[in-house]
Amino acid sequence: MSKLYATVDGNEAAAHVAHRLSEVCAIYPITPSSTMGELADEWSARGKKNIWGTVPTVIEMQSEGGAAGAVHGALQSGALTTTFTASQGLLLMIPNMFKIAGELTSTAFHVTARTIATHALSIFGDHSDVMSVRTTGWALLASANVQEAHDQALIAMAATLESRIPFMHFFDGFRTSHEVQKIELLSDDDLRALISDAMVFAHRARALSPNHPVIRGTAQNPDVFFQAREASAPYYKACPGIVQAVMDMFAARTGRAYKLFEYHGAPDAERVIVIMGSGADTADDTIDYMNAKGEKVGMIKVRLYRPFSAEHFVNALPKSVKAISVLDRTKEPGGPGEPLFMDVVCALNERHAEDSNTVNPRVIGGRYGLSSKEFTPAMVKAVFDDLKATKPKNHYTVGINDDISNSSLKFDPDFSVEGDDVFRAKFYGLGADGTVGANKNSIKIIGDETNLYAQGYFVYDSKKSGAITVSHLRFGPKPIRSSYLVSNPNFIACHQPGFLDKYDMLSDAKVGATFLLNTAIPADKIWDTLPREVQDDILKKKLKVYCIDAYKVAADAGMGGLINTVMQTCFFAISGVLPREEAIAAIKKTIKKTYEKKGDQIVQMNFAAVDRTLANLFDVPVPGTASATRKRPATVSDKAPDFVKNVLATIIEGRGDSLPVSAFPADGTFPLSTSIWEKRAIAQEVPIWDTDWCIQCNKCVMVCPHAAIRSKVTPAMPSMAIALQSLRRWPTVAPICQARIFFIAYRSRPKIAPVVVSVSTSVLPRTNANRSSKRSI
Amino acid sequence: MSKLYATVDGNEAAAHVAHRLSEVCAIYPITPSSTMGELADEWSARGKKNIWGTVPTVIEMQSEGGAAGAVHGALQSGALTTTFTASQGLLLMIPNMFKIAGELTSTAFHVTARTIATHALSIFGDHSDVMSVRTTGWALLASANVQEAHDQALIAMAATLESRIPFMHFFDGFRTSHEVQKIELLSDDDLRALISDAMVFAHRARALSPNHPVIRGTAQNPDVFFQAREASAPYYKACPGIVQAVMDMFAARTGRAYKLFEYHGAPDAERVIVIMGSGADTADDTIDYMNAKGEKVGMIKVRLYRPFSAEHFVNALPKSVKAISVLDRTKEPGGPGEPLFMDVVCALNERHAEDSNTVNPRVIGGRYGLSSKEFTPAMVKAVFDDLKATKPKNHYTVGINDDISNSSLKFDPDFSVEGDDVFRAKFYGLGADGTVGANKNSIKIIGDETNLYAQGYFVYDSKKSGAITVSHLRFGPKPIRSSYLVSNPNFIACHQPGFLDKYDMLSDAKVGATFLLNTAIPADKIWDTLPREVQDDILKKKLKVYCIDAYKVAADAGMGGLINTVMQTCFFAISGVLPREEAIAAIKKTIKKTYEKKGDQIVQMNFAAVDRTLANLFDVPVPGTASATRKRPATVSDKAPDFVKNVLATIIEGRGDSLPVSAFPADGTFPLSTSIWEKRAIAQEVPIWDTDWCIQCNKCVMVCPHAAIRSKVTPAMPSMAIALQSLRRWPTVAPICQARIFFIAYRSRPKIAPVVVSVSTSVLPRTNANRSSKRSI
Repeated sequence: MSKLYATVDGNEAAAHVAHRLSEVCAIYPITPSSTMGELADEWSARGKKNIWGTVPTVIEMQSEGGAAGAVHGALQSGALTTTFTASQGLLLMIPNMFKIAGELTSTAFHVTARTIATHALSIFGDHSDVMSVRTTGWALLASANVQEAHDQALIAMAATLESRIPFMHFFDGFRTSHEVQKIELLSDDDLRALISDAMVFAHRARALSPNHPVIRGTAQNPDVFFQAREASAPYYKACPGIVQAVMDMFAARTGRAYKLFEYHGAPDAERVIVIMGSGADTADDTIDYMNAKGEKVGMIKVRLYRPFSAEHFVNALPKSVKAISVLDRTKEPGGPGEPLFMDVVCALNERHAEDSNTVNPRVIGGRYGLSSKEFTPAMVKAVFDDLKATKPKNHYTVGINDDISNSSLKFDPDFSVEGDDVFRAKFYGLGADGTVGANKNSIKIIGDETNLYAQGYFVYDSKKSGAITVSHLRFGPKPIRSSYLVSNPNFIACHQPGFLDKYDMLSDAKVGATFLLNTAIPADKIWDTLPREVQDDILKKKLKVYCIDAYKVAADAGMGGLINTVMQTCFFAISGVLPREEAIAAIKKTIKKTYEKKGDQIVQMNFAAVDRTLANLFDVPVPGTASATRKRPATVSDKAPDFVKNVLATIIEGRGDSLPVSAFPADGTFPLSTSIWEKRAIAQEVPIWDTDWCIQCNKCVMVCPHAAIRSKVTPAMPSMAIALQSLRRWPTVAPICQARIFFIAYRSRPKIAPVVVSVSTSVLPRTNANRSSKRSI
Repeated sequence: MSKLYATVDGNEAAAHVAHRLSEVCAIYPITPSSTMGELADEWSARGKKNIWGTVPTVIEMQSEGGAAGAVHGALQSGALTTTFTASQGLLLMIPNMFKIAGELTSTAFHVTARTIATHALSIFGDHSDVMSVRTTGWALLASANVQEAHDQALIAMAATLESRIPFMHFFDGFRTSHEVQKIELLSDDDLRALISDAMVFAHRARALSPNHPVIRGTAQNPDVFFQAREASAPYYKACPGIVQAVMDMFAARTGRAYKLFEYHGAPDAERVIVIMGSGADTADDTIDYMNAKGEKVGMIKVRLYRPFSAEHFVNALPKSVKAISVLDRTKEPGGPGEPLFMDVVCALNERHAEDSNTVNPRVIGGRYGLSSKEFTPAMVKAVFDDLKATKPKNHYTVGINDDISNSSLKFDPDFSVEGDDVFRAKFYGLGADGTVGANKNSIKIIGDETNLYAQGYFVYDSKKSGAITVSHLRFGPKPIRSSYLVSNPNFIACHQPGFLDKYDMLSDAKVGATFLLNTAIPADKIWDTLPREVQDDILKKKLKVYCIDAYKVAADAGMGGLINTVMQTCFFAISGVLPREEAIAAIKKTIKKTYEKKGDQIVQMNFAAVDRTLANLFDVPVPGTASATRKRPATVSDKAPDFVKNVLATIIEGRGDSLPVSAFPADGTFPLSTSIWEKRAIAQEVPIWDTDWCIQCNKCVMVCPHAAIRSKVTPAMPSMAIALQSLRRWPTVAPICQARIFFIAYRSRPKIAPVVVSVSTSVLPRTNANRSSKRSI
């Protein structure tokens, strides 16, 4: 049987299985799980069928509470049912989850693990939501990467139907849900091989039905509740064995073998870490690297977190282990330790409870990666190094500088385990400028057209459209397990010339790397326009510099401001990832595939853009010495308050990771009006009010997506001059509006008519509150 | 300063403090916390003020989700705010609780710990709800009895204002929330002594205010979230010390000393149990008893469960301890152990992590008391006994017979630690027949008028009105810590003659106890009417038997069917708890106090009832041998299905505790239509439709509180005779309606007029769904 590959993100990987195994999906999309719900919705709308030949019903409810209720109801009717959620959305499902588990109902939810809002909201990933439902009696199955998210979506479904324990299959929000990887696909036959009709019929037979009426959801009293509650114990006891059996069946069919607790490392390791989710892949690589250097370390990758099988866990440990460090991607303030750590301690206690003379290995625990904080090989090494100490630091943090509680482990930011066979690239673009789309496209080309493995991860600013997005791409001959951002890139592209004055893009470049700059300045004039820091970095790192005026090339090719095809072509032309001719052919093939439906004109236009790109891509001559006296301008004015200068400016510069704990208020309280110091100035063009065209409809106020144009009703004024005078008298509005005041004088009835003033204030803070859509944030 | 006492239940005890320390109470009452919300509402409606002289605002929201949001908002405005909830209600508060903790906001919630619905709903008490919020970062403070619920309501508030960690103060649903005890009250001055103005001003100063504007609820990204999350760590570290300091201040003022982890038992104990909530009081008594018999046992009563201070815990343990058994009142299927057990294991691991050569005591854990399952000294002893074994049973259950997983510890049901100085009484009444009210009144009389301590606990059937309620009363010279039902009673009263044929009331009576029977049968004829089992028990236990025709006495005194005053008078007249004359005077005093506002006539009517009671209370002559050949009839017909005969009949008889785990379906699925086998026959009178009075308005359908009268629209029929014929043709309705079919023929327009048929079907199951009110169940 020939293998099928696809280049997809974690959400699509999971949804691709979940949709094919469902009859009902009750959804309420929430970041970062939205894609799963949206894809399911789209696929069903297009008539895509599940493996039994029916189109799954996708229902969007009024909230996650409603989605959970709809799931519970559909399950009781015997339908194979799922949902997709995260964070606060998952919290709203808790009451129904208790019921679903109590009734031993088979279902597999797919969750992108995401931070729960505490001192601040965060859309990013950690295990705080997953851990908050560990009391519900659900099985919790962790996937560490995109391939696993695909595979374990099936394993979860097969295991829940077999065991009757409901499963929550989860993977790290953003790091896995939004990482694009080349994975091996499961065919419909693979799905059918693991989900037998008998299992489905058994699920159906348990449904509430007038044909064999029963009652569920009764009330019980103190006399019998406890006994009835214990009656489900054998199902939980059997569950881990069932999951392992399903995993073994899966391995026999696909060749991809999974274990409940998977040991990786030296067979005689003395130091072992325990970790779950995407961080496990990073640890994997690091352990190979360290053992190759003569150390004896290992790790246990946790897949089936609940039911937690102490027996399987202890059996997975090498006998040689002397010290264990458990890494939790969550913080539960007030607990005696984080949850995974506590489980490990208790699993080892089982032996001790049997025979109190046994001496267990030392177990310590720590926190990492909260809210998608970077977790790198350097941090894994720091954890192992500390475990060697006579008194290792317990309840540590790693990845931050905790100068308040002194909990953090020191790590060497330059430590790397990546080999030279991995090509690494970073692209700096603006949200919605097409950079991310083009890069996803490039990954697909490389993933689909070659034997190389490909990985893409996209760092979005939560300011979304108009904010910086950095694409991190890796290509290599082996599967890529580096679940952290790219450093020491071989290739850096700056898609927005203004970024050179704002961000440090080059200081971590690999020596001899390639730097591509989109700029309107001719190649021979560029050098002198660069700030001193950029010149220094180019010289120090011996960078090859290329430039293109992408906006001009795109416009000339009739593509308006869409520079994605142009920049993608540049990347393939100069990066050397693929032979140039082969790459260009692949781009054109993809263009044809993507735009064919829109007509040949569009295809030809894109072909032209590719050809024009090659003609307009130039080497930038790099002199031997730096010439610039101009330095990168300060991020915020020197007049800004200290908090803005010391904390917010660092965040704006993209160096927020370096801020210590002491920089932050303990309760999430921030000063107001700090955004006035952040001059974003991201517009390529500034609209000007044209009196000749204006019909004074005032609709501009309604349509402006960022509420930048606002209207005000004022008393009627005889002339525009007086109105402007009046505006100057509004001290709070005037400085904000600055030069871009749009003014519409409208007088329908003399004397009592109002004047409507619309003001464009693009310097006002853009908040999520300004966006409204039927979605959780 | 003279001490103030009151006889109140746990809810009133907590609310009494909470209302005086609040400015806003956002409520959505849910069983068993409802009383707290309702009292707060009532007190504010009556203008009762808090200690600062303002009347707290009480707002009822649309759900617990809304209540939590309102609390969050009010707190952010600087108001001292609380709420009262439990179970699913608490689950709906989780998202807001994360925010409130993340923002380090001072508040104290008061929660009656209650079972979360799983395979079945239960309104009763365990820690499953409390444990489900242990991830939120809240402090969790446990009270073990009514006095503590009162005291710790204050301690929680003082500690939250000092520490800024939000507190959830909880106590066991029903067992503590509904237990009536005589407690020492905290005065307003006591409250003021612990809640300084400075603390309140500091809370105010942290409010969102236009006078010092700040922003909370921002969004943070991977760069800074982790650091900011760690910034609150010092607050959690300081919290246990703050709570102990508050407890010490409290002790200095009131003489009642509390510890975070309170050790009780032999200073050189080798076996120690760890327990939290009302079970701790039972263990307390048992340990004293066992140590008096020469054993060396002890316990740690957990008060501050979160933040869990490993240091305080380990310091509280006696050095001599060799084995620890942790008792959890919850079940978390799939976890490596229950939560309190895991905490204890991890607390001990701290030492081991420091120095891996230390050997910790053996720690095992088990479950007890789920959903208010009885927890008695016999079970405590069983736990200690098993801890002596070479291989004690880990993850045990105690209090049930687990014949499926074999997890249960055996216990001796006859083991008792109660002294002869405790007077124990049990009263069997019908829901809403006044029995509970009369008993609460008796407790108040004894608690308020004498130096005796008093305890009352009331076992309601969740069928509520019309179902059996058993009152369990204790009186004694020392504070009563027996948080379990009465056994071996000195006094048994049967307020409903029909119960003798249904329930075993006498087999556990103390030898020589008094039995009072309400019956219309004359004293000298009673003996021969008793079933054989009752006669045997009376003879075996040498019971003194009294009787009264309470319904006749009440009716003759002009009190209709209200027998409460009559039965209460009987109790005092024959129980010997108080001297007879003194007791009668106290009853009359209470009658005056209670009914004075309703006019002298009502008072005199009750006085008359008391006097008539004494004249109509007779000794029942007990012959030397049993004469009855009649046995107690079977609970259900022999034709009932096996499940009804073996399981439901046992529950109906009040012997559900004896059912083993194997009696129950694992997923809460029950057969339908079992209620037709339960002939409740509780009506004193059956209404008959009177054609002369009926004006055919059909309102009977609307007003029937149990939906027993239903109407049906049928095609017009020429005569009632045909209509009745037609009714007989409805096979499903006819047998249910049996003899009580009410029929209203109504014809407004010839030929097309409908016929409305109302059907009284009191044998239909009464379900909670038939009751609707703005309350969670």
